[in-house]
Amino acid sequence: MKTLDAPVKPGGVIGIIGGGQLGRMLALAASRLGLKTCIYNDENHAPAFQVTPLQVAASYEDQNMLRGFAEICDVITFEFENIPSATIEFLSALKPVHPGAKALSQTQDRFIEKTFVASLGLATAPFFDVTSADQARAAFSKLNGGGILKTRRFGYDGKGQAKVTSADQAASAFDNFKNAPAILEGLIDFSFEASVIAARGADGSFAAYDPPENEHENHILRRSTVPGRLTRAQNEEAKAMARKIAEALDYIGVLAVELFVTKDGSLLVNEIAPRVHNSGHWTIEACQCSQFEQHIRAVAGWPLGDASRHADAVMENIIGAEADAWESLAKSGALHLYGKQEAKLGRKMGHVTRLKPKT
Amino acid sequence: MKTLDAPVKPGGVIGIIGGGQLGRMLALAASRLGLKTCIYNDENHAPAFQVTPLQVAASYEDQNMLRGFAEICDVITFEFENIPSATIEFLSALKPVHPGAKALSQTQDRFIEKTFVASLGLATAPFFDVTSADQARAAFSKLNGGGILKTRRFGYDGKGQAKVTSADQAASAFDNFKNAPAILEGLIDFSFEASVIAARGADGSFAAYDPPENEHENHILRRSTVPGRLTRAQNEEAKAMARKIAEALDYIGVLAVELFVTKDGSLLVNEIAPRVHNSGHWTIEACQCSQFEQHIRAVAGWPLGDASRHADAVMENIIGAEADAWESLAKSGALHLYGKQEAKLGRKMGHVTRLKPKT
Repeated sequence: MKTLDAPVKPGGVIGIIGGGQLGRMLALAASRLGLKTCIYNDENHAPAFQVTPLQVAASYEDQNMLRGFAEICDVITFEFENIPSATIEFLSALKPVHPGAKALSQTQDRFIEKTFVASLGLATAPFFDVTSADQARAAFSKLNGGGILKTRRFGYDGKGQAKVTSADQAASAFDNFKNAPAILEGLIDFSFEASVIAARGADGSFAAYDPPENEHENHILRRSTVPGRLTRAQNEEAKAMARKIAEALDYIGVLAVELFVTKDGSLLVNEIAPRVHNSGHWTIEACQCSQFEQHIRAVAGWPLGDASRHADAVMENIIGAEADAWESLAKSGALHLYGKQEAKLGRKMGHVTRLKPKT
Repeated sequence: MKTLDAPVKPGGVIGIIGGGQLGRMLALAASRLGLKTCIYNDENHAPAFQVTPLQVAASYEDQNMLRGFAEICDVITFEFENIPSATIEFLSALKPVHPGAKALSQTQDRFIEKTFVASLGLATAPFFDVTSADQARAAFSKLNGGGILKTRRFGYDGKGQAKVTSADQAASAFDNFKNAPAILEGLIDFSFEASVIAARGADGSFAAYDPPENEHENHILRRSTVPGRLTRAQNEEAKAMARKIAEALDYIGVLAVELFVTKDGSLLVNEIAPRVHNSGHWTIEACQCSQFEQHIRAVAGWPLGDASRHADAVMENIIGAEADAWESLAKSGALHLYGKQEAKLGRKMGHVTRLKPKT
């Protein structure tokens, strides 16, 4: 595994696997710093291809193309965690890859992830490994009420998830997932959801943004509000949790920790995303250094930037056909559109951030 | 002359003449809005070429290339005002160009510009047309003290300027400029310099940023500070001056008006820049909508964005070899580097903006 001997100099190239909106916003942030980006994406059209001349459209398993890509990059990162682990291994032998294989191995699989989180002494919902319909029934019986069956891998935005309220439902949900390895989690009667976006630098330095409160609709993030309902003590606790996780993973880059805030005020870890995160988009306007710039700084071996917040912010996603109202959205706040041509149902087309004076 | 029938839709292409740092930051701002940019530059290497795959490297007089460029653009703008007027005329017949020929014709020539400003009832330094060494002497005799001889066209960052303290010096400065048409301006004993960055939309709407105080070194902008020493009344007066100028020019886009603030508190117009301006770079971090996004919004026929300021800011340019200290600069604030390879003497390599809570 390669590591950086020295920070990537201005003019150097950051390789980004994945050309969606996160890759696009990472590339825009790198450009501000005088760094170039090369985007690797497995489809010909990608939002991030519009913002840099350096681009590779090829399969994530094409070793010739991966080798050529690594050749022109000084360091490699990614915008999504579901990259084939063979791809990461292959690239890691050629150039530094951050966050590295360890972070991915602990977060690509929900069962491994929750086991890892629990091993750090952090609270999660009760969870059980499910590899058969019988195991699904047995696990359900241990829950105190309903649960959610989730495939262990490759889920996002509610995909690969089913709410279950009986042992029979748990078993048939497992069958519906075509016997993919799964995890049964106990339903949490939470007060609200939150997340903490944090960064760890190559030198072990750490910076965390104020945790937003998050609202979801149809399993997709609708809105992030900062400050939300977290108390000052919960803010600090959330940041400390993110730090514990980042340090245990020898993490380099930005990561997000999704949290449930229970009615008695406890913070439970729901999920770790080893990347920049939708609930951190408000940092573009409200912080001197956005989550995207922060990630680029970390993976390039640069000093972390100032994560303090100088305004209150509400970020709302623009989903599917909502993007047709771009003109009135442009009037209403800081509009970001991702360059996607088709406004498919449930597709994140952009977001809008509205600032208010800091409270 | 073409005009836009409707706003450029997301996915549309903004053509930008000039591939320097201003073109680069305009392109980055357009990308946030889901607009594509095509950069036209007369050299093969240009900072803005690094941030978009759509680019043309050709002479500003190459009509074939200009025609192809216009073909793929929905609207065309520029990052610098010294474009050959034949180029603007040629492009204007093919696609909407903003700001248009009128704004350029009034601002490319210092004598025409100052005459225009005076015609609006706005104050300037005393100025005289100089087309011969004798005229330079005669003009000097009308000044109350020293003056500055400036070529009427193509000056920037102090180039084409000479301070003169006698009629003989005025005459020899004119000879040194190889008889280029010039203007002799009376020296202003100002208290400090300021500028106002403002935008006028296609619908006649107007938005102005809080005017920064500006400090120069060796004729190059060193630092912009907002708020500076302008009073609230001077802020409003400066914005009203910019509005008067923008309306008289039927202006569409962002323009900057450089000001002298005299010891008795008057505001004198020094220069108009029909484009985004170095003294407005702090708006990237301190305002919801930066000057770059504002310009893109205006030329694309979009609603103007919110120009209000939510933090105090100091912007400092990074000039020449100062960029070698990029790592410590990255620690100290929001660093912007422009992707220039050679750190030539006096070349603007980047800037750094530092925010403080709003006062």
